[in-house]
Amino acid sequence: MDDTSSVGIVNTQSFTFAESPNELPLECGRNFGPITLAYETYGKLSPAKDNAILILHALSGDAHAAGFNHPHERHPGWWDIMIGPGKAFDTSQYFVICSNVIGGCKGSTGPSSINPQTGKPYALSFPMVTIHDMVNAQRALIDHLGIDQLLCVVGGSMGGMQVLQWVVSYPERVRLAIPIATTSKLSSQSIAFNEVGRQAIQSDPHWKEGEFYGKPIPRRGLAIARMIGHITYLSEKSMHQKFGRKLQDKAEYGYDFRADFQVESYLRYKGDHFVDRFDANSYLYISKAMDYFDLAQPYGSIEQAFANVKAKFLVISFSSDWLFPSHQSKEIVSACRRVGAEAIYTEIQTDYGHDAFLLESEQLTSLITNFLTHGRKEAS
Amino acid sequence: MDDTSSVGIVNTQSFTFAESPNELPLECGRNFGPITLAYETYGKLSPAKDNAILILHALSGDAHAAGFNHPHERHPGWWDIMIGPGKAFDTSQYFVICSNVIGGCKGSTGPSSINPQTGKPYALSFPMVTIHDMVNAQRALIDHLGIDQLLCVVGGSMGGMQVLQWVVSYPERVRLAIPIATTSKLSSQSIAFNEVGRQAIQSDPHWKEGEFYGKPIPRRGLAIARMIGHITYLSEKSMHQKFGRKLQDKAEYGYDFRADFQVESYLRYKGDHFVDRFDANSYLYISKAMDYFDLAQPYGSIEQAFANVKAKFLVISFSSDWLFPSHQSKEIVSACRRVGAEAIYTEIQTDYGHDAFLLESEQLTSLITNFLTHGRKEAS
Repeated sequence: MDDTSSVGIVNTQSFTFAESPNELPLECGRNFGPITLAYETYGKLSPAKDNAILILHALSGDAHAAGFNHPHERHPGWWDIMIGPGKAFDTSQYFVICSNVIGGCKGSTGPSSINPQTGKPYALSFPMVTIHDMVNAQRALIDHLGIDQLLCVVGGSMGGMQVLQWVVSYPERVRLAIPIATTSKLSSQSIAFNEVGRQAIQSDPHWKEGEFYGKPIPRRGLAIARMIGHITYLSEKSMHQKFGRKLQDKAEYGYDFRADFQVESYLRYKGDHFVDRFDANSYLYISKAMDYFDLAQPYGSIEQAFANVKAKFLVISFSSDWLFPSHQSKEIVSACRRVGAEAIYTEIQTDYGHDAFLLESEQLTSLITNFLTHGRKEAS
Repeated sequence: MDDTSSVGIVNTQSFTFAESPNELPLECGRNFGPITLAYETYGKLSPAKDNAILILHALSGDAHAAGFNHPHERHPGWWDIMIGPGKAFDTSQYFVICSNVIGGCKGSTGPSSINPQTGKPYALSFPMVTIHDMVNAQRALIDHLGIDQLLCVVGGSMGGMQVLQWVVSYPERVRLAIPIATTSKLSSQSIAFNEVGRQAIQSDPHWKEGEFYGKPIPRRGLAIARMIGHITYLSEKSMHQKFGRKLQDKAEYGYDFRADFQVESYLRYKGDHFVDRFDANSYLYISKAMDYFDLAQPYGSIEQAFANVKAKFLVISFSSDWLFPSHQSKEIVSACRRVGAEAIYTEIQTDYGHDAFLLESEQLTSLITNFLTHGRKEAS
C-alpha cells in the first residue's frame, strides 16, 4: 500500500442506541431496538466540527470504506481510491465517516443479528427497513459523534438514495450533497431485477423461510441474485471489452454445460465469492428497501420533497449506466432548480456502466475536490 | 377470431428423418437421429414452388405461428399478427412454413423426447445442438417439402440467427432474408444473462442433473430463468409505462416479502405460466445454442462468411432493444454491403424493446410487404 495516500490501519467501530424503551420508530410502523451501527472514521473532526463528510454505501457495501483493518488485509476498503490524504475526500482536511446500514450484515443490526429477547437470530422477524429508516439510524450516529451539521453527504447507487433522503429529512444538517449514479425512485426495471434475485434466494431449499443460521446457507440462490446484480452493474460495452466471446481455458467449444466462456466463469466466481461475505436475508431486506425508495411519494412531488432543502448539490451520472440511467439524475437536478436549490450536474462519459462510481476515480476526484473546496469556502 | 384475416384451423405436422444409419452430423461431432421436426404450413405452394417462406422462431417459440390448432384455443399462433390472408406474410400469395427447432419441446426431437434405444427421455444424453444444426435439420424438412429455393427466410431474435445461418450455409436456396432484432454473434452480456438462467435451473433441486421426467419438475428454477429473460425482452421505458411503481392490489406498501408492485406479480405470473409450457432441459440446450452462435467464427470474418451469399437482405432492429441493440444489426448490414450483397436496413422507433418483433405489426407489415413484393418481382 502507498503509505502517503492511505489512511492506513483503521478499526471498525460500533455504536448502539435505541435501547428499550427508546426504540426507533420505523416506517413500517414498528418500533425497533436495540440498534448497532458499524462505522469507520478517517481524519480528524475540526474544533468547529464543520469538516465532517458522511459516506453512504451501496447494496453490498459496508463501513470499511478506506484503509486496512489489519496489516495483512489483501484489499483496502471499498472506496479507498477516493478517501485518504490528498484524495477527493482528503483526510488531511476532512473528518470522513462511513456508516453501515441497518438491515446489513457487516456489524450492524440486521436479520442475521441475535435478537436479545430470544437469543436467536432475527431472521424474518427482523422488521422491514427503508432508506428513510437507514438515514434515521445514521442521524443517531451523527448525534452521537456530536456533529450538528455535516459538511457533505455522499454516496453512489443506494448510497445516493440515502444522500437524497438525508437532505430531505434533515435539511438543516447537510451543507453539501453528492448523489452519484442514483435515482429519486427505483424504476420498474430495477424492481424487477431485485425481485428475480429475491426469488432465486427464496427458491433455494436451504433458505428455509430465512431460518438457515447454523445450517447450510442458501449459497446457490444468493450467488444467482448476485450474478443478476453484477450484470446490471456493467455495461454491454464494458463486458464486450473485458470478455467478448473469449473462451475459458479451452481452444474450442466444450459442447457441454460447463462454462465455455470467460464471462460465465467470471460470474460464477463473483457469485461464489459474494456468498462468503454476505447474508442472504440482508440481501432480501436491503433490496426491498431500495424497491420501496420513492423520495417524492410522502410529499406528493419531488419539488415538495425538496421544498426545505438547504444543501448545494453535485449530481453525477455515468453515460453507460443503464441501471440508474442519466435521465434519472437529470430529474433530480431539474427538481432542485425548480425549487431554487443550487445543483451542478455532470454526466461522466465512461464505458464502465453503473460500477463507474467505484472506478472513475480521476474524474470523480476532480469534480468532488472542486465542489468541496468551493462549498466549504462559501459556507464559512 | 377475424375469419377473413386468419388462416383458421391448422394442424401441426411432423417430419421424421435422419434414421439410422443416415444420422445427421452435428457440429459437436456426434451423429444423431432419428430427428422429428414439428412444423405448420399456411397457404399453398405454387406450381413453380417459388412462393415458399420459412418462418424461424425465437428461444421459446414453436411451430404454431398462426391460426388455431383447435376451435376453442384461446390465443392464436405466436406470429398470427403477421401471417394470414392480406397480412405481411400473405397466405393468399405465399406458402408459409414455420418449423420448430431440434432441441425444443414442442413436438420436435429434444432432451424431453424418448430415446428409441433406451425407451427413456434423452435428458442430458441429448447432444448439444447449435443454430447451424437447427438449420441443417430445417434443410431436410425443406427438401422433404420438395422446395429447391425458398423465396424468403425470416425470423426475430434466435429466429434471425437461423436466417443468417441459412443464407451462409445454403446460399443457393434463399432469395430473400429478413433477420429481425438479431445479431451475428451473441454478446458477452447476453451470454451472461443466459448463463444466470441456466444456473437457476441447474440449482433447482428438482432438476436432478436433468433426470426429472416423471417426477416433480424444476419449476422455480425455470421460472426464474424466464423472469430474467423477460426483463431483457422489455425496455426500461416500456416497463415504466406498463407498470411504473404501481402497487398490486393494495394501497400501501406491505412491508413483507409478498409482491408489493405490479411488476413483481407480472413477472411471477410470466414465470409460472412458462413452466407449464416449456421443458427446463430444452431451455438449457437452446440458450446454449444461442451462446455458441458466432456466424463469422468458422470463416474468419463475417465478410468471408457472406462471400457466397445470394440473398437480398431486409435487416430490421428496434431502437429500444437493448438485448440485441441496433449496432449489432448495423454490423450485419455493413458486412453485406462490403461483399456486395444488397441490404436494406431499418431501425424502427419503438419503446417495446426486444419484444417489438412480436408487437410492431404495422411497421413490420409495411416494410416486409414491400420487400417481398419487390423481391419476388425482381427474381421472376
